[in-house]
Amino acid sequence: MRSHAFIDSLGSASMMAQIIDGKALALEMKNELKTQIDAWVKLGHRAPTLRCILVGDDPASHTYVNNKIQAAIYVGIDAQTIKRSKDISEEQLLAEIEQLNADANVDGILVQLPVPETINERKICNAVAPEKDVDGFHVSNVGKLCLDMPTLVPATSLAVIQMLKRYNIDTLGRNAVVIGRSKNVAMPIAMMLHTDKRHDSGLGMDATVTICHRYTPKDQLEFYCRHADIIVTATGIPKLIKADMVKPGATIIDVGITKVTDENGKSRLVGDVDFDEVSKIAGALTPVPGGVGPVTVTMLMHNTFQVAQSRVGKSLTA
Amino acid sequence: MRSHAFIDSLGSASMMAQIIDGKALALEMKNELKTQIDAWVKLGHRAPTLRCILVGDDPASHTYVNNKIQAAIYVGIDAQTIKRSKDISEEQLLAEIEQLNADANVDGILVQLPVPETINERKICNAVAPEKDVDGFHVSNVGKLCLDMPTLVPATSLAVIQMLKRYNIDTLGRNAVVIGRSKNVAMPIAMMLHTDKRHDSGLGMDATVTICHRYTPKDQLEFYCRHADIIVTATGIPKLIKADMVKPGATIIDVGITKVTDENGKSRLVGDVDFDEVSKIAGALTPVPGGVGPVTVTMLMHNTFQVAQSRVGKSLTA
Repeated sequence: MRSHAFIDSLGSASMMAQIIDGKALALEMKNELKTQIDAWVKLGHRAPTLRCILVGDDPASHTYVNNKIQAAIYVGIDAQTIKRSKDISEEQLLAEIEQLNADANVDGILVQLPVPETINERKICNAVAPEKDVDGFHVSNVGKLCLDMPTLVPATSLAVIQMLKRYNIDTLGRNAVVIGRSKNVAMPIAMMLHTDKRHDSGLGMDATVTICHRYTPKDQLEFYCRHADIIVTATGIPKLIKADMVKPGATIIDVGITKVTDENGKSRLVGDVDFDEVSKIAGALTPVPGGVGPVTVTMLMHNTFQVAQSRVGKSLTA
Repeated sequence: MRSHAFIDSLGSASMMAQIIDGKALALEMKNELKTQIDAWVKLGHRAPTLRCILVGDDPASHTYVNNKIQAAIYVGIDAQTIKRSKDISEEQLLAEIEQLNADANVDGILVQLPVPETINERKICNAVAPEKDVDGFHVSNVGKLCLDMPTLVPATSLAVIQMLKRYNIDTLGRNAVVIGRSKNVAMPIAMMLHTDKRHDSGLGMDATVTICHRYTPKDQLEFYCRHADIIVTATGIPKLIKADMVKPGATIIDVGITKVTDENGKSRLVGDVDFDEVSKIAGALTPVPGGVGPVTVTMLMHNTFQVAQSRVGKSLTA
């Protein structure tokens, strides 16, 4: 009794948030996927295949694509990077995509973004065959997502939803705040968070959702965050979310990722959340790095396997 | 000075809300459209054409389609209703749509919803050629809308946005609440309300948007509504929005429309808002009927003319 009272008297401020360990969760999910893909191949199917087109020399893009290839190898997906010079024309890039679209041995196709400014990004996203579009950026896949139809869901937003599900975070009728309105990340998250679980996609979370963004005044952002049971932040603004903006016990998913350099010239990656302070008040919290990132890569593998299965009209997963 | 002080002392509670007169606005917009279509026809183009497929005997559907035909005649659109028995098969209906898709003399096509339960509504919506889809329900048009690309926007949601614009309701950085999450009405409204005005559609309103729905607890709905500068309600629940849920001066757009029968057996149409009470506290308010409804019909005509113009690759309007 005494120790119980002692714990109570400490209050929530001295409790540490549960850390939502994206690295461990990604490993768990990759192992599940590996088992499923092994079984799939044992049934006589060829291994799922993924082709990543990487244009130009952006180091971050090279790192991202490399991470994807490593994850693919781990789970048993045959993945290849197709590297092209930053001087490639839009026409040439479209022709490359067309060739992959037509190749029956290719399941998933992705074009690492951003593409050089001479190339229309939207045109490229819409050029990937919708049924092979593992990034979920094709306009018709966006339409399906927003109509709660089964489709290929952008990996980062799917990662956020899966992290909430796997950690049994209650969302039905809860107050969620999404900070950001990007079309590839924040918008799909806000869509799945608020929609009806009974719809065909099965990804609806039935939360009340507030979408905040660059024009939300600071005091209003604080107002909505303090009232939120779940905060998903995707802004790239370090320390945007401070402890006094968080309701005790809230769940925080940090999708932000920014490279900062300290006074010694050493650089590191940080999220949108003031992690050290917020971890004292939140109920559950993702770190950066090691949070949403690794799960995102795993979701891309999930999507690739989904394409492989639908190609032959069969599914091993629910 | 005295009279000014006198007015102040009354406070906002005794001020009446500005009534957003949808009937008058619709007439104004129809007259603008009529002028534009007249000019278009004088340039040698044939009149824009609209074909409405109406399946079955639902009296409400017949009334809606009739209203559309009347508005079309008014603005100079050649509109026809294609009536089909409720026993039509999905295959036959798809064949009808295909014929209209292929007919170069047809601009806009709509299938009045709901269709009989034997017919897959989503399949029908996706069967209409996207470029003729004046209802904006085709999955690729939904995708474009959600990516802030120019497209055919569902008429009711476009009506709400146009009413806010025409009445100069400030939305940038303001708090908006959308009650409802239907894919044909509430979702597109929430999308346009929160997105970036600088994007290609030009329909973004840059508001902070909270999406409430059936799983939002009553006390939370009240919380968000009281904090809102703009409330858009689309639930079909009469008197859901009461005066004590409204911030003085807020703008309220009532998309609800429900037939209620009084104790004398007389029926009338009402919205979601307790109009008599809320009009004493709101800053601006749409009535039902005579609010969003007439503007919706006008937006359908706007969309039909948009199809006619894009068909020949020309535009008279911005």
